Amino acid sequence: MRKNPLTIAIHYDSYGAQWRELLSERLPDFQIRLWPEWGDLADIDYAVAWTPPDGLLRQCENLKAVFSIGAGVDQLLADPDYPKNVPLIRMTDDILAEGMAEYVTMAVLALHRDLLRYLEFQRAADWKPLPQRYPRDQRVGIMGFGKLGQAAALALKPFGFEISGWSRTAKQFAGVHSFAGPEQLSEFLAPLDILVVLLPLTDDTQGMVNADLVSSLPRGARVINAARGGLMDIETLKPLIDDGRLGHLWLDVHQVEPLPADHWTWVHPNVVVTPHIAAATLPRSASGLVADGIVQMEAGQMPVNVVEFDKGY
Amino acid sequence: MRKNPLTIAIHYDSYGAQWRELLSERLPDFQIRLWPEWGDLADIDYAVAWTPPDGLLRQCENLKAVFSIGAGVDQLLADPDYPKNVPLIRMTDDILAEGMAEYVTMAVLALHRDLLRYLEFQRAADWKPLPQRYPRDQRVGIMGFGKLGQAAALALKPFGFEISGWSRTAKQFAGVHSFAGPEQLSEFLAPLDILVVLLPLTDDTQGMVNADLVSSLPRGARVINAARGGLMDIETLKPLIDDGRLGHLWLDVHQVEPLPADHWTWVHPNVVVTPHIAAATLPRSASGLVADGIVQMEAGQMPVNVVEFDKGY
Repeated sequence: MRKNPLTIAIHYDSYGAQWRELLSERLPDFQIRLWPEWGDLADIDYAVAWTPPDGLLRQCENLKAVFSIGAGVDQLLADPDYPKNVPLIRMTDDILAEGMAEYVTMAVLALHRDLLRYLEFQRAADWKPLPQRYPRDQRVGIMGFGKLGQAAALALKPFGFEISGWSRTAKQFAGVHSFAGPEQLSEFLAPLDILVVLLPLTDDTQGMVNADLVSSLPRGARVINAARGGLMDIETLKPLIDDGRLGHLWLDVHQVEPLPADHWTWVHPNVVVTPHIAAATLPRSASGLVADGIVQMEAGQMPVNVVEFDKGY
Repeated sequence: MRKNPLTIAIHYDSYGAQWRELLSERLPDFQIRLWPEWGDLADIDYAVAWTPPDGLLRQCENLKAVFSIGAGVDQLLADPDYPKNVPLIRMTDDILAEGMAEYVTMAVLALHRDLLRYLEFQRAADWKPLPQRYPRDQRVGIMGFGKLGQAAALALKPFGFEISGWSRTAKQFAGVHSFAGPEQLSEFLAPLDILVVLLPLTDDTQGMVNADLVSSLPRGARVINAARGGLMDIETLKPLIDDGRLGHLWLDVHQVEPLPADHWTWVHPNVVVTPHIAAATLPRSASGLVADGIVQMEAGQMPVNVVEFDKGY
């Protein structure tokens, strides 16, 4: 016999208490448990999680669904014991797309306007204006052209950049030249001044941004990765950035997070490191989406954005 | 008797040769002289200049008009001998507004997303995510709401910031709360998270952004000056930024340019210094506007954007 009331368990390192509070407001009849106080795992109907310990979710034997906090689900599927018989729901909070559009625009404009060089000049009290580039001459390519990639394109377009997108299947998007599939990858990369990586991390994309791929970009091109560290084979990129083949690397995500203090990317003069902050899932808006999803499921419907496990996203 | 052909003299430190070439293409019947080869000053019909030596333009006794390169005209009017009987035409190149929109958006997003703190953390290999701010909670005020201010507002609006503008006379602009005149200045400043200074430099605005004005902002507010160094009484701001009253100062313009190597703003941890690069007048587009203005004047018409000397812009 199933217990009463229905139970939601939350596993999130930041904002956990805020998640519990907001979900309680929306779903007052549910019992809400915050890690590590998950109690009897058999009680749990719904899990809301970012990076739970491996095997934890499989032990929740009566789980009806897992809601992922954050844009990807790779961090959950990295658990070899992840229970693939349970629906996994991706986060589609607009605030994620907004945060990503902000971050990508900031990074693209900073590279386009040479902000990092100017900050370096400032440290040397060196007054050195550089020639200004016309945005219309600048080609920005967005690799991974789903909701986040499209939000970034929409934010960048008004500045006049020439924008293109690359994805597994062709996407139509006003004013953006769309490329699709492995056969169009080199054509997409060949003219880019700035490449923005926003791919999902799957078996197919793991380590995809490597020396080979970067060698298809023009010399001196800049690369921004705001998606997942695992997309990059970062060690193969080091020689390219050392010799200027790769002009600048802007990394919000890293193979191991937190990034180990002795990693070369922290100290390389042509690398920007930020600590995975491009787009946070903020409880204020995201908790409403999770609550809606739970209400839907209790009414016998399936929420949108259920992960297709064979694709990995 | 006037000589033939008509003569245009250019005085510009960067891009001078490019200006000459492009004007020659558009106005092949004109003689074009590049400083310091201005020859007999009495020959000169039109001057195209940014910061000519004091008194030079007055000596050009047959001058029909002066075209300013760059957004302001204060750098020309700083010459006590400037010939105010000669029409002075302001630059209205769209590329100036575009460059300014780029620069201001870059600076606002970098402050909004704490980029400078993250770069500081990077230097210490310190993994330290900060809470993300909702753009809708962030109030950005633009002081000086002419063509450049409006371009900046238009670029910032899609990110969701709450935008307000302040100018001498009220301006209507979709989605922007408009304030005007000295009587509404405190009300404009009181709620701002980020203040963007884009005023013209005139007798009225000289030194206007001082400790008094900044004290009307909330504690920790950030200020961006991308207009003119003379708008700020920078020494009065030092104590405020030292004690955190003023959160960050982002300066593209400076009272003396180039900024002297021993100036405190170069080394202050909460000041960004760039070398007056926010919006360059690029000859490719601006030369066409100057050529058009000259053709108009030769046809007996007056170009738009003739400076009103009593206002100073």
